[in-house]
Amino acid sequence: MDTRTGLPVVGMIGGGQLARMTHQAAIALGQSLRVLANDVDESAALVAADVQLGSHTDLDALRTFAKSCDVVTFDHEHVPGEHIRALVAAGHKVFPGADALQYAQDKHLMRRKLSELGAPVPRWAPIASAEELVAFGLPAVVKTARGGYDGRGVFVVNDVEEIIDLLASGAELIVEEKVELRRELAVQVARSPYGQVAVYPVVETVQRDGICVEVLAPAPDLPEDVAVGAQELAIRLANELGVVGLLAVELFETPSGLVVNELAMRPHNSGHWTIEGARTSQFEQHLRAVLDYPMGDTSLAAPVVVMANVLGGPDGGLSIDERLHHLMAAEPGVKVHLYGKQTRPGRKIGHVTALGDDLADCRARAARAGHWLTYGKAPEA
Amino acid sequence: MDTRTGLPVVGMIGGGQLARMTHQAAIALGQSLRVLANDVDESAALVAADVQLGSHTDLDALRTFAKSCDVVTFDHEHVPGEHIRALVAAGHKVFPGADALQYAQDKHLMRRKLSELGAPVPRWAPIASAEELVAFGLPAVVKTARGGYDGRGVFVVNDVEEIIDLLASGAELIVEEKVELRRELAVQVARSPYGQVAVYPVVETVQRDGICVEVLAPAPDLPEDVAVGAQELAIRLANELGVVGLLAVELFETPSGLVVNELAMRPHNSGHWTIEGARTSQFEQHLRAVLDYPMGDTSLAAPVVVMANVLGGPDGGLSIDERLHHLMAAEPGVKVHLYGKQTRPGRKIGHVTALGDDLADCRARAARAGHWLTYGKAPEA
Repeated sequence: MDTRTGLPVVGMIGGGQLARMTHQAAIALGQSLRVLANDVDESAALVAADVQLGSHTDLDALRTFAKSCDVVTFDHEHVPGEHIRALVAAGHKVFPGADALQYAQDKHLMRRKLSELGAPVPRWAPIASAEELVAFGLPAVVKTARGGYDGRGVFVVNDVEEIIDLLASGAELIVEEKVELRRELAVQVARSPYGQVAVYPVVETVQRDGICVEVLAPAPDLPEDVAVGAQELAIRLANELGVVGLLAVELFETPSGLVVNELAMRPHNSGHWTIEGARTSQFEQHLRAVLDYPMGDTSLAAPVVVMANVLGGPDGGLSIDERLHHLMAAEPGVKVHLYGKQTRPGRKIGHVTALGDDLADCRARAARAGHWLTYGKAPEA
Repeated sequence: MDTRTGLPVVGMIGGGQLARMTHQAAIALGQSLRVLANDVDESAALVAADVQLGSHTDLDALRTFAKSCDVVTFDHEHVPGEHIRALVAAGHKVFPGADALQYAQDKHLMRRKLSELGAPVPRWAPIASAEELVAFGLPAVVKTARGGYDGRGVFVVNDVEEIIDLLASGAELIVEEKVELRRELAVQVARSPYGQVAVYPVVETVQRDGICVEVLAPAPDLPEDVAVGAQELAIRLANELGVVGLLAVELFETPSGLVVNELAMRPHNSGHWTIEGARTSQFEQHLRAVLDYPMGDTSLAAPVVVMANVLGGPDGGLSIDERLHHLMAAEPGVKVHLYGKQTRPGRKIGHVTALGDDLADCRARAARAGHWLTYGKAPEA
């Protein structure tokens, strides 16, 4: 507890944009997020008052960090499970715990567990050789069990030769059928230690080159029973896996129904729309969950909410500050979130959110706003 | 400019809750608010990464502070005008400037200027003696020209004897007629150096013991022409007074129309509802204005928005953290903003906001939520 305020201190391991936006939410709750960052220039370290520099793989740094926190949680999923167990053994509260988090850290464990639970998943298998891959059948999707994110570690394979180096690397791999994909959906649920759950509306996530570029809330034209089914699945998984905090369930919509693609156990890109678009943002909800506070209202704040990620564009032209001026002049109703990051082509440097009554209009406004930040010029008509 | 982000640095003099909430808004714009606070325990100092300790009356401290800012602005109106002029003479941008801010610092100057401009004001006069007060006519409202806020420095006087000490103190005083008050209203406008203005809907502010306890947005049952007139008045005053940043115009609704009560040139308690209740919060709008960014959309995010201030209550009983649990369980849709302040009876320690379609329902929800924080128990049925 912060003795100055009488309110708890949540520590977040990792200083990226998720920690940055969680700090904003913490401020409203009377708190100040404590952040473990690698560098003073990381997104959250730029804005938070209480920053410890250190690595998420350094157990001593983690121990020092946890001592000043009521609860420790994560900006990413890269903290080794044994470190989490060591912190818990020392009496610290860490959410989500290692037993739950392993399913977000290891795709092989996740697939096996989901299969055991009878959750809908693509046909899959562990593979260790070219022969096993051929036997599974090609084309298929090969994934490294650990370490992938934003499309990294995921390979659509038509011919074994394409991943011959990967097969030889010794990395643990799984293979999945290439599903007939209609679109991708996601659903977020928060769960507290007490077991209270609160689920958000199902959203559509639009990907490009394996990176989420747009989120549409609620998912357009999704039948009510399918949406409810997805929400029930997310709640069941949060309970069965023992998640505390946020769980994002990424789904493929296929002709034969929904299948689970990935799990994330933290605030997630598919939930950035909630900052303005839901009564309780995912960042506040994650804080409530890990603190065992009662959950907040997850209902939509507008009929349609569209979030577009802002990626860094080619160098040159207008400065980011000039681009922001143009965006604001062109789209006075779009909300901007910049993460304080240096621009690099393809890097997520922020996001924009448009709210309204009409999906096409919201998508167009968000896209125009994002285009200004990425390219420094008006989109072509 | 912050060379790490390519985005500007706004410095706010004063570390109170207005700076705290402005920091939240700055984070979204890719910035981190620089704060000049008296103490490490002040609301904004608890949460901001870039805090300089020092007094707002210490010119050396102000000079040091301004050197690392692109623009300097204020959490309060207590910085001496000569200090502001000295910073501007040294080449710093300070908004609002001293020529504008004097009208928020000195009620005598404000009344004289508004009278010159033909703005509607109560009948008023400067007074220096009991005789002048009697000649003006009692009952009346006596105000100190400088230093009052939240009802301090304002005296409803029925008999000269009541303020005989004040009259002898040498404080500069004005007297105003006690208007026939139907209710109090407020309207906020933001103005940029370029001269762009953006005005918010007119709100009703409910006062108790001279302190704003509740804000209803939009002001219920206000005729459209009166609302537009109030907005036009606010725009005219922002232009005529040369305000840059936010101007809050507090108004009395009387049988003969609106009259101006007070002016404030900063984010204002009457605008806290905008955090969730308007497309652009007053805090983001103030940043946009002082940075000469284009203004944001001021439209309502819900048909009805009610903000209730949370005052500290009697000591004892549940801790603030326990009270927050109860509030969240009882009112999952109410948004909470705690300022990180030690609780003292009557002190503003936070606010709550309820959004919806029905005024009575929103008021009841906000009041119940606030009651939990102030008293640590459910309101009596």
